Parts: sequence; structure tokens; C-alpha cells
Amino acid sequence: MNTTAQEITQETKQVISQDELLNHWQGHRNLTRRVIEAFPEKEFFEFSIGGMRTFAELTAELLAIGAPGIKGIVTQEVQPYQEDSTKATTKAEYLEKWDKATSVINDYWSQLRVEDFSKTFNLFGEYEFPVIQNILYFIDNEVHHRGQGYVYLRALGVEPPFFWER
Amino acid sequence: MNTTAQEITQETKQVISQDELLNHWQGHRNLTRRVIEAFPEKEFFEFSIGGMRTFAELTAELLAIGAPGIKGIVTQEVQPYQEDSTKATTKAEYLEKWDKATSVINDYWSQLRVEDFSKTFNLFGEYEFPVIQNILYFIDNEVHHRGQGYVYLRALGVEPPFFWER
Repeated sequence: MNTTAQEITQETKQVISQDELLNHWQGHRNLTRRVIEAFPEKEFFEFSIGGMRTFAELTAELLAIGAPGIKGIVTQEVQPYQEDSTKATTKAEYLEKWDKATSVINDYWSQLRVEDFSKTFNLFGEYEFPVIQNILYFIDNEVHHRGQGYVYLRALGVEPPFFWER
Repeated sequence: MNTTAQEITQETKQVISQDELLNHWQGHRNLTRRVIEAFPEKEFFEFSIGGMRTFAELTAELLAIGAPGIKGIVTQEVQPYQEDSTKATTKAEYLEKWDKATSVINDYWSQLRVEDFSKTFNLFGEYEFPVIQNILYFIDNEVHHRGQGYVYLRALGVEPPFFWER
């Protein structure tokens, strides 16, 4: 098979391309950023329903998964999951960490090749799955917890951003 | 390009294969089914937080999107969005509709080809996007609303199913 044939096939036969999947993820991350912004400062750190975590705690989890996760996948270095360095005490600090994670994700993503997505990686030394499944988990877990954040905002009488705006 | 080269490339170069994406979607649908089951009958139809919809109303929405959406994409028939036929009055009826939708989705999915995912379709006559974006929207919207359902369950003192169990 020559390179031209391979390139044409790659372009025309993807269910989703690598670029589209990154845009999809970063679009979700952009929406989550606006959900963080929508929280009143105090309630971001204190409000919860039914004994669940605060949105600050959920944000710390999302920060501990996204950038460290993609870094592990690309560098093939198995590091344990840890939230200590992703915790902060103000919304502004969380937003700063969020934006840094955005670039880290873009940088590592550009080092991934299409054939890497089907390879298995032992994420955080705990989740040994194909890379595509780990990445979809990053996205789904964020959408799941952000859905929780929407209920917190509504319960606080705050209008959340539109779900379809990325 | 000969067929063999094309087949090899399709197998080795997918970010996500068509089968994997269906399994991913149906895995999420299976989890949502268990969230519906976890609700007490009365609260499924009556409980909500912050003026949001009940989980029965959200389920009617998910039923109005998934199977009708994929049917539209495959048949190329533009039908308006409608929830009337997806509404029911008992959890058992919703679960029956859910299981019917599971087969409908599998049936239409098997008629999709890899090259269809990048084609544009005017879903419900309102959302003119590439098919892959519409399908990802079906999944994300379900994860989002199900996240909302998790908060309702926790507020009701009911333990929701584990998020990672599909």
C-alpha cells in the first residue's frame, strides 16, 4: 500500500478523526469552564446535595484526570492518580489550572498517532484499557459531573450555560 | 487502491471503530436503564430539584432522540422532534420502550457505513451537522441528564449504580 492510498483512506474512512475528537473534548472542557465561572465563589466550595462532593472537589478530580491522563498515555509513564496538586482555594486558581490543562492536553494530543488509540495503557496503574476507552471515559466522566453541577446551579437559582454551547 | 489495502487500513487506523462506538453508546444506555430502575416509582414521575424536569420527562426526551435520531440518519427522512409517543405512565412501560429502542438502534446502526459518519444530516429538521456530531450529541446529552438523575437519587437517599459499570 502506498502512502497516498493510506492518506486518502485515513481521510475518508474515519468514524471520527483525531482532530474532531480533540475538538469534541476541548469543547466540553470549555463548557465545564463556564460552569465553574457560573458558580458563586462560596457555593463553589461549600454547596452540595445528598452528601455528594462540592463542584470544587469535582473540578479537582477532573483536573487530576484530563491532563495527567493524556500525559501518561503519550509518555507511557504509569503514575498513580493524585488530586493533591490539583486542589486550590479560589475559583480564579481553578480557572488558571483549567487553562494550563487545556494547553497540556493540546500539546500531548499532537504527539498521538491514529494507531495509538487502539493500544492498551494502564492508566494511573489501575485502568488497563485501550487508549480510546480511557479518553472517552475522561469526557464522559466530565459530562456526568458537570450534569451534577447543573443541578447545583439550578438549586442555587443560577442559570447554567446552554448545554449545546461549546 | 485494492480492497485488501483498504480493509487493512480500516482495521488498523480507526480512532474508534463503528462497533466500538455502538458498544460505547449502548453501554451508556444500559447504565441509564439501571438509573431508571433505581428510582422509586412515584419519585420517577414527581421528584425534581430547582425547577428541572423529572427523570420520567428526561427519559421521554432520551427516547425521542436516540432511536428516532438514528432512524432519521439512516433513512435520510427528516422528521420533526416529538416526545408524544415516547411518554408513558409507569416505569415498566418506560423500560419496555427503552428495550425496544435498544433493538431499533442496533438495527439501524448495522446499516451505517464508515463513510456516513462525516456526512451532514439535518436532524429533526433543526440540527444540520455531520452524523458523528449528532451521534456524540445523543450520547453526551444522555450522560448529562443521567448525571442529573444521580443527584435526584442521592437527594432521595437512593444509591445510584456505579458510573463505570456499563
